[in-house]
Amino acid sequence: MGDALRVTYLVRAAARDIEARAESLLLEQTVELPRSSLREPAVVERVLGQVERVEAGSEGSHRVTVTHPLVTTAFDPAQLLNVLFGNSSLQPDVVLADVELPDSAFDWLPGPRAGVAGLRALTGVRSRPLLATALKPMGLEPKQLGALCRTFAAAGIDLVKDDHGLADHPFCPFEARLEAGLRATEGTPTLYVPNLIGTPERVLRQLETARAGGAKAVLISPMIVGLPLLHQLATLPDGLPIVAHPSLAGVLRAESTVVLGKLFRWYGADAVIFPHAGGRFTFDMETCRALARTLRAPSSRARPSFPVPAGGLDVDRVEETLAFYGADSILLIGRGLYEAGEDLYERTRALVARVARAASAERA
Amino acid sequence: MGDALRVTYLVRAAARDIEARAESLLLEQTVELPRSSLREPAVVERVLGQVERVEAGSEGSHRVTVTHPLVTTAFDPAQLLNVLFGNSSLQPDVVLADVELPDSAFDWLPGPRAGVAGLRALTGVRSRPLLATALKPMGLEPKQLGALCRTFAAAGIDLVKDDHGLADHPFCPFEARLEAGLRATEGTPTLYVPNLIGTPERVLRQLETARAGGAKAVLISPMIVGLPLLHQLATLPDGLPIVAHPSLAGVLRAESTVVLGKLFRWYGADAVIFPHAGGRFTFDMETCRALARTLRAPSSRARPSFPVPAGGLDVDRVEETLAFYGADSILLIGRGLYEAGEDLYERTRALVARVARAASAERA
Repeated sequence: MGDALRVTYLVRAAARDIEARAESLLLEQTVELPRSSLREPAVVERVLGQVERVEAGSEGSHRVTVTHPLVTTAFDPAQLLNVLFGNSSLQPDVVLADVELPDSAFDWLPGPRAGVAGLRALTGVRSRPLLATALKPMGLEPKQLGALCRTFAAAGIDLVKDDHGLADHPFCPFEARLEAGLRATEGTPTLYVPNLIGTPERVLRQLETARAGGAKAVLISPMIVGLPLLHQLATLPDGLPIVAHPSLAGVLRAESTVVLGKLFRWYGADAVIFPHAGGRFTFDMETCRALARTLRAPSSRARPSFPVPAGGLDVDRVEETLAFYGADSILLIGRGLYEAGEDLYERTRALVARVARAASAERA
Repeated sequence: MGDALRVTYLVRAAARDIEARAESLLLEQTVELPRSSLREPAVVERVLGQVERVEAGSEGSHRVTVTHPLVTTAFDPAQLLNVLFGNSSLQPDVVLADVELPDSAFDWLPGPRAGVAGLRALTGVRSRPLLATALKPMGLEPKQLGALCRTFAAAGIDLVKDDHGLADHPFCPFEARLEAGLRATEGTPTLYVPNLIGTPERVLRQLETARAGGAKAVLISPMIVGLPLLHQLATLPDGLPIVAHPSLAGVLRAESTVVLGKLFRWYGADAVIFPHAGGRFTFDMETCRALARTLRAPSSRARPSFPVPAGGLDVDRVEETLAFYGADSILLIGRGLYEAGEDLYERTRALVARVARAASAERA
C-alpha cells in the first residue's frame, strides 16, 4: 500500500474481543465507518490500513499495531494527530504506545532546524553538556528579570530561558522582557531564550520581534499553543531554533516517548524539556532514559534534539545526572539555584564549575 | 486581589499531606517556586493566589479549590491553559475538575460568535432540534462527497459537516471538496460545514477560501489545531461560526465539562460535538447532561453554544435522545444513516420526519 504509518496502542480488552476491538480501532482513525459500509473499492484501496499484529500483554492488556497508508495523513501535521489518536483518545481503553513513520514523512515534517549540533554552535559549547536555567517567578518586572539574567550569564550558564508562564503580562510586557533578556546577555556567550505564547498570530508576532531584536532561539509549549504551530514555526524560512516545554503534555494518555520524544522532535523542536525522575513529577528513570534515546536516535532525515531534563534537578547530584544523560544533553536547573537567595551568583558559579569538572573527568 | 480565576482539582493524597499538596499545586501553576523563594513582595501581591478550600472526597481524593488573580493569565487564551493545567497536567495525582472565570474575562474571551440563536438563524430552524450528519468516509473524491451531500440536503438534513478527518488529501483536495459541498447545498436550507485542518496558516487560508466560496460555518478540532487558534478564529472580524469536534480531547485528564463545555464555548465554539452515552465512546448520561447544561448555561457575557451529541446515536431511539437534550440541540447522526447503503435517502428522509414529529409532539 505504498508508504505506511505504523501505530501501536495498548488496548484493554478480553482475549475473545481483541480481534474485533483492533479492527474497530483501525477503522475509527480514518474511515470512521464499519467495513460493511465501505461501498467504494477505491476507499479501501486508498486509505484502509490493516491490523498488523496483536500481542497479548499483562492483565488484559494487548499491544495492537495497525498500519495506515501515509496518505491518510494528507501529509499534514494536524491530520497526522487525527490518524494517530483523534477519536481513539476518547476511548479510555486505549493508550497510544508508539508510532513509526516512513522516511518519506520527512518530506513534510521538518524535524529540528538546529538540533544538537546547531545549538552547540550557537552557544559555542563543543562537547560538554549544556547548563540552562529559567527566569522566574512570574510577577517580576523586566528590569528584575534582566538583573537575574545578568547574574546567570556572569556565572556562566549557557541558556537562560523564560519560565513558560511568562506571557505578555501588564507588569512585564513581552517586548520589554525580551529587551531586558537580550541586553543582559549581550557580549556574553549566554543565550537568552524568550518564551512565546498566545494565539498563533501573537506567537508569530512575538517571533518576529524576537528575531528582529537579536534572539537566537525561542521557547514554546507545543501542547499549549498547538503542535501544528510548532510545525509552522519550524518550517518558517527565517525562523529560529525552538526549545519545547512540556506544559499540558502530561494529560495525554500516551507514552511520553511518543509525544515528547517523537512528535516534538519530528514537528521541529531542537531541545525538549521534560521532568527528570525523582523531582516533583513522576517520570521514572526508564522513561527518562527512553526519552533521551528517542530524542537523539539516529535518523537520516531528522536532526537529533537535545534532551533537557528539568523539574527539580538536585544540584548536589549533578554529576550523577550528567552521567545518566551523557554529553549531548542540557541540564535545566531553576529551583535549586533560586533557593540560594542572596547567594544566587555563587551557587550558580559553583554549579557551572561542577558541570565543567564532571565533563572533563568524563572525557579523561 | 481584584478579579480572580477559581480552579478546582481532584487530588489524590493522604489527609496528612493534602494541605502541603494543595499549596504546592497553587504555586506550580504560576510562580513555580516555593513560597520561601519569593523574595519580592510585589510578586506575592501581583500573582500569588490562595488555596480557597480543601474538601475530603472519597478514597483518598480531595477537592482542592485555588484562586489566582486573573492577571496571571495575561488575559491570553494560551496562558490561561498554563495557569489551569500546564505543569499540573504532568502530575498524575491531579485531575482538573472545574474552572470559574470572573465576568471580566469575557473582555478577551470571545464566546460563540453565533451561538444557538445565530445557528438557528442560519438554518432557518426556529424551535425544533437540528439534525446534522457527516460526509464520509475519507477516501471518497469530491464528486462522490458532493453526491452524498446532495442526498442529505434533499432529505432535509439541517447541517452536513465534513468528517473531521477530511483534510487536504491528494484524492480530495480542500478546495474541490468545499466547492462540491457548497454546490450540493446551493438553493437548499441545508448548511454545508467544511472541515478546516492544518497548521494555523493553512487553517486561516482554508477559512478565507471557505468564506469567499460562500460557506456560512466551519468545523475544526480545537485540540488538534490548538485551542488558541479557536480563539483567534472566533475573534476574526470576518470569521464564521464554528462547530467544534472533540478529536484528541479525550486525552485530557480533566472533566469533559471543563474542556468541551467551558473552554470550547469560552474560546468561541458555536456548537460542540461530543459522544452521546451508549455509543462506542464511554461518556455516561450524567456527563452528557452536564455537558449540555454547561454549553447552554445562561451568561451575561457568552452566548450559549449548541450541544451536538454524536458518536453512534441510535436512529431507532431518536425520540428518546431528543427528549433528553431538548430543543436547543443538534443531533449528529452519521453511521446510523450510512448503514442504509443504497437506501441512504429514504433512511435519512425517515429520520428527518421523525425528528419533526417528535419536536411538534413536544411543543403540543
